[in-house]
Amino acid sequence: MSDGSTTRPTGGDLHRLIADLYPICRSITGDGVGETLNRIGEIIPLDVHDVPSGTEVLDWTVPPEWNIREAWVRDASGKTVVDFRDSNLHVVGYSAPIERRVTREELVEHAHTLPDWPDRTPYRTSYYDETWGFCMPHRLLEGLSDPEYDVYIDSSLESGSLTYGECRLPGESDEVVLVSCHVCHPSLCNDNLSGIAVAAFLASELADRKKRYTYRFVFLPGTIGSITWLAQNAAEVHNIRHGFVLAGVGDAGRLNYKRSRQGRADIDRAVEHVLTHSGADYGIEDFSPYGYDERQYCSPGYDLPIGCLMRSPWGTYPEYHTSADDLDFVLPDRLADSLDTCLSVVDVLEGNGSYQNLSPQGEPQLGRRGLYDSIGGRVSPEDGLLAVLWVLNLSDGNHDLLAIAERAELRFDVVRRAADLLEENGLLEEVVSGAPRSHGAVS
Amino acid sequence: MSDGSTTRPTGGDLHRLIADLYPICRSITGDGVGETLNRIGEIIPLDVHDVPSGTEVLDWTVPPEWNIREAWVRDASGKTVVDFRDSNLHVVGYSAPIERRVTREELVEHAHTLPDWPDRTPYRTSYYDETWGFCMPHRLLEGLSDPEYDVYIDSSLESGSLTYGECRLPGESDEVVLVSCHVCHPSLCNDNLSGIAVAAFLASELADRKKRYTYRFVFLPGTIGSITWLAQNAAEVHNIRHGFVLAGVGDAGRLNYKRSRQGRADIDRAVEHVLTHSGADYGIEDFSPYGYDERQYCSPGYDLPIGCLMRSPWGTYPEYHTSADDLDFVLPDRLADSLDTCLSVVDVLEGNGSYQNLSPQGEPQLGRRGLYDSIGGRVSPEDGLLAVLWVLNLSDGNHDLLAIAERAELRFDVVRRAADLLEENGLLEEVVSGAPRSHGAVS
Amino acid sequence: MSDGSTTRPTGGDLHRLIADLYPICRSITGDGVGETLNRIGEIIPLDVHDVPSGTEVLDWTVPPEWNIREAWVRDASGKTVVDFRDSNLHVVGYSAPIERRVTREELVEHAHTLPDWPDRTPYRTSYYDETWGFCMPHRLLEGLSDPEYDVYIDSSLESGSLTYGECRLPGESDEVVLVSCHVCHPSLCNDNLSGIAVAAFLASELADRKKRYTYRFVFLPGTIGSITWLAQNAAEVHNIRHGFVLAGVGDAGRLNYKRSRQGRADIDRAVEHVLTHSGADYGIEDFSPYGYDERQYCSPGYDLPIGCLMRSPWGTYPEYHTSADDLDFVLPDRLADSLDTCLSVVDVLEGNGSYQNLSPQGEPQLGRRGLYDSIGGRVSPEDGLLAVLWVLNLSDGNHDLLAIAERAELRFDVVRRAADLLEENGLLEEVVSGAPRSHGAVS
Repeated sequence: MSDGSTTRPTGGDLHRLIADLYPICRSITGDGVGETLNRIGEIIPLDVHDVPSGTEVLDWTVPPEWNIREAWVRDASGKTVVDFRDSNLHVVGYSAPIERRVTREELVEHAHTLPDWPDRTPYRTSYYDETWGFCMPHRLLEGLSDPEYDVYIDSSLESGSLTYGECRLPGESDEVVLVSCHVCHPSLCNDNLSGIAVAAFLASELADRKKRYTYRFVFLPGTIGSITWLAQNAAEVHNIRHGFVLAGVGDAGRLNYKRSRQGRADIDRAVEHVLTHSGADYGIEDFSPYGYDERQYCSPGYDLPIGCLMRSPWGTYPEYHTSADDLDFVLPDRLADSLDTCLSVVDVLEGNGSYQNLSPQGEPQLGRRGLYDSIGGRVSPEDGLLAVLWVLNLSDGNHDLLAIAERAELRFDVVRRAADLLEENGLLEEVVSGAPRSHGAVS
Repeated sequence: MSDGSTTRPTGGDLHRLIADLYPICRSITGDGVGETLNRIGEIIPLDVHDVPSGTEVLDWTVPPEWNIREAWVRDASGKTVVDFRDSNLHVVGYSAPIERRVTREELVEHAHTLPDWPDRTPYRTSYYDETWGFCMPHRLLEGLSDPEYDVYIDSSLESGSLTYGECRLPGESDEVVLVSCHVCHPSLCNDNLSGIAVAAFLASELADRKKRYTYRFVFLPGTIGSITWLAQNAAEVHNIRHGFVLAGVGDAGRLNYKRSRQGRADIDRAVEHVLTHSGADYGIEDFSPYGYDERQYCSPGYDLPIGCLMRSPWGTYPEYHTSADDLDFVLPDRLADSLDTCLSVVDVLEGNGSYQNLSPQGEPQLGRRGLYDSIGGRVSPEDGLLAVLWVLNLSDGNHDLLAIAERAELRFDVVRRAADLLEENGLLEEVVSGAPRSHGAVS
Repeated sequence: MSDGSTTRPTGGDLHRLIADLYPICRSITGDGVGETLNRIGEIIPLDVHDVPSGTEVLDWTVPPEWNIREAWVRDASGKTVVDFRDSNLHVVGYSAPIERRVTREELVEHAHTLPDWPDRTPYRTSYYDETWGFCMPHRLLEGLSDPEYDVYIDSSLESGSLTYGECRLPGESDEVVLVSCHVCHPSLCNDNLSGIAVAAFLASELADRKKRYTYRFVFLPGTIGSITWLAQNAAEVHNIRHGFVLAGVGDAGRLNYKRSRQGRADIDRAVEHVLTHSGADYGIEDFSPYGYDERQYCSPGYDLPIGCLMRSPWGTYPEYHTSADDLDFVLPDRLADSLDTCLSVVDVLEGNGSYQNLSPQGEPQLGRRGLYDSIGGRVSPEDGLLAVLWVLNLSDGNHDLLAIAERAELRFDVVRRAADLLEENGLLEEVVSGAPRSHGAVS
């Protein structure tokens, strides 16, 4: 996809990337993240950054690096009843190494199950409390009746580094659109291989376009990763104009957008506009300081205009953080729909601007200029004419095109095309403020 | 009605004026407009202005003047099958002259019908594309089976003038209330002989009253007429404080008010207040840059506080722009109701003002001054006392009487009377800003 | 209750005070008010003020003092048919003295009854029109068939004074919370012995607490009393930061809060917050210039942030201003609920404040500081953590804790406790503006 071809990636392309990444054991540090980034780097140009353990980042410290090679539980007969090789979910993330015979009682204390979903293995971590543990189906745990078990975890928790990847796509301006996704979850597809896949293919799509904005795609471990990135990019954070977190964008649910802390930032308006005109059901929720990395980007010391695009919100579906969030749970057409939505949002961000009507007294004579029914394309003549009239009427320097589209209840691209036509006819002039806009260069 | 008598015009009076004007063939220029204005001039003092063809007005140019004397279609036997004398709707407005034998096919190409309403003749114009055409019932067109027809249009499209009328009623102040209606439609009653009639009789009603504002009633062709008027009154446009367009105010539908572009201008609040307290169903719609001459008045270079009062909105009823918009389609009592509404709106505009409570600490002792139950009239004692208390409470310079009526959910006249009583008792003083107000002089 | 004990008064305590005060004949002046204040003075420290008749207070004049010793109506046989000793409602308040034989017709002219409620005696006054009158059950009046009656009212209307009481509880700051209730009604329990009882026991509860604000509880005759108090406290009125009127807070109805004229003052937000989280039905109404003494406090020359807390609003229940507003009509548990609500409102006012997040870039690491699940008490761990995150996120100097509680939809005390924890951990600092806050000193 990075060869400049114009074929848009399919849902199948996205799903195949997810399938590639699914077996890798990821955590907030460790080799699995690097492996994941290498695979993404085959699709888009990616800079990989290693930040040493112990580095102070904002109020936090980069933790030791965790790696795991093998782990199992064996019963009295020596039979392996739980094996990390079957699923990396079986070991609690950041488990300390252990090699010991334990009583059934002690094993149960260190076992995590889901009694309501007895066939699913839960996903658990313990980043900042040193402990060990196994996750397994509740039904399996109930079947363990031996008095003692051998437990073995061959892991290491040592000074190393935290790894994240960034794909920077320069645009005409230094102003930045930030797209962020977390890469710290092991074999869970919706959360968040789906976000990784959509981000990667979105970057791939935008790579060769002429862009007004510079795009920065970051692939990083949740919380500590975004905190590290913010710390390391302190001098550039103020350039961020828009952004969104991608998380859980492959399941069958409707799209849900969580607004930035600002609430009515351009990104909030752009996503809401795109969803409003999508023809599909969707949800909008206000910002709250719980959730994904928007928590960090929207902390009061930054207050960045960054929202979060999801399908089913985290915690609202029973597959969440369990082995049921697998390759069947993410659907190619939903992945493609999420990517399309992101591209439409980018079109709005790229195409938005404020204009001045140069013939503001009365309506200019459209007929003389052939501006009736002239928008064409997928637009009805009525909508086309309405778009022309609305752009003329509201281009007083106080309304950007997105505001005009909102007020007129017309699709942004229709309004954008009307503005182009009026500009070509000398009836409209952009009010320059901030970044220059690349007219129609995107989409 | 212009002799100063106080008898309010009846719905019958309005309908009779419409009947007088109905047969006249009007267009955006031509003798029909002048004839129409002459008849209006019998009711109110009217200045008639002729603006030469070719005059540049804002972004437009005054077009050639169109006149028509005769037009018909005759079949092979010489029988007249379509005749302009039967209805001026039969000829497309601004049709070029023609005298020729045409094939049935060519006639059909130049014929306009309404297949869904086969007995109605549509109304069509072609101001800026030189062509010719006939409008007729679809049933009639279907019956034309001769291979050839003679078509004859004795029209002229020559340098002349655009004509409009204005009735200026001076008030105490130079600040203007503008009432505008279009006079360019031929034999169509609701659109817009109804607007013409209500405007004319509203002017007649206000002519001899003492008025705070100067009133300007303009009778002009749609679009090009208001553009011409704006161009010719450039030095005075800034005096316009309130205004409304009257269009389609005679049909059986409920009243609908379309807000000015400002949305919460005094005129918008005044009309909404009157409709809210009318006891009848009504509609309010936001401004859009489509519709009648409010499009021009509300273009961003003017942004005047001018809305549009209608009954059924244009395009929403099947009689719209057809021969079915006839004398039966406009109802005397609806015309009278529209006129009454306009008069109530004028009462609010004239009576509104901001006051200062001169005894603002605690309530003044109303009993000592006989101010309990003192409003009288149609008002209940409770409403009267409430009005007095609300006026005292909110007269802090930040609320005009209309805002107080809105907040108190009381009729404006009740609040106005309370303010008068309080002023007489030395408890209230007007906050002068802009035009002086003529206390209670209106209504 | 004034001995500093921490036992909260019960509904029974409140009802017993009402029962004590019920028999006393109160009016806007006269001995009954003094008697009432003496009884309240047994519960809380109370300064009693006498303002001489004839004193000019704002736009009003303190009226003569009215006292009554005896009053009756006797029939032709000398039998007493109406006796002031049975109920002080039987005589119209401010009745002039009379000792005369009158015809039945004259008696009927001076009799007040409720034909729809024939067994109830209405409550009537005539403060500013000198007259005399008797109130009685309609059924009793209908039974009076003698041609003549002896009427006797031994009252006096003489220069004296208007009496009100004030309990001032000093706090750390001179900023004042005003609690006001009217004491001018005779034997009516809900209106307003309930308000008197809740105010008295609220003061008693707050007396020995450490308080940020100074509290002023005023017990005064309606209208003329608050006007007199405002006039006499002109130099201190500007210190009032919050306040509420207590009236009709003992009946079975839900709590109703009427907003101050400002509408979104802290007191309005605090009461609405408490009611929202009360778990019970409640009502909120906008300010109107009709009602109790909030009319005076919210007149435009003061515009104080003072609302009114009621249960069933005045005039909406048939017992209102009749002999049926008796000791059975006010319920101990409703009185206690009203008092609890007032205390919760005080907790919000005392505990509110604006803070600055001292680690505003990204989230501070809560785990390191043991701030997960640390709020405890009645709060769920989820709510506790959410409160911590919300306080951190919105402590940017633009949101006080009440705003954070509103935005987070969490109880104020949970948010307050989160702020305390964060402050103890050096993550939060109060933004000082106005009065210092007494951390957690209340409740």
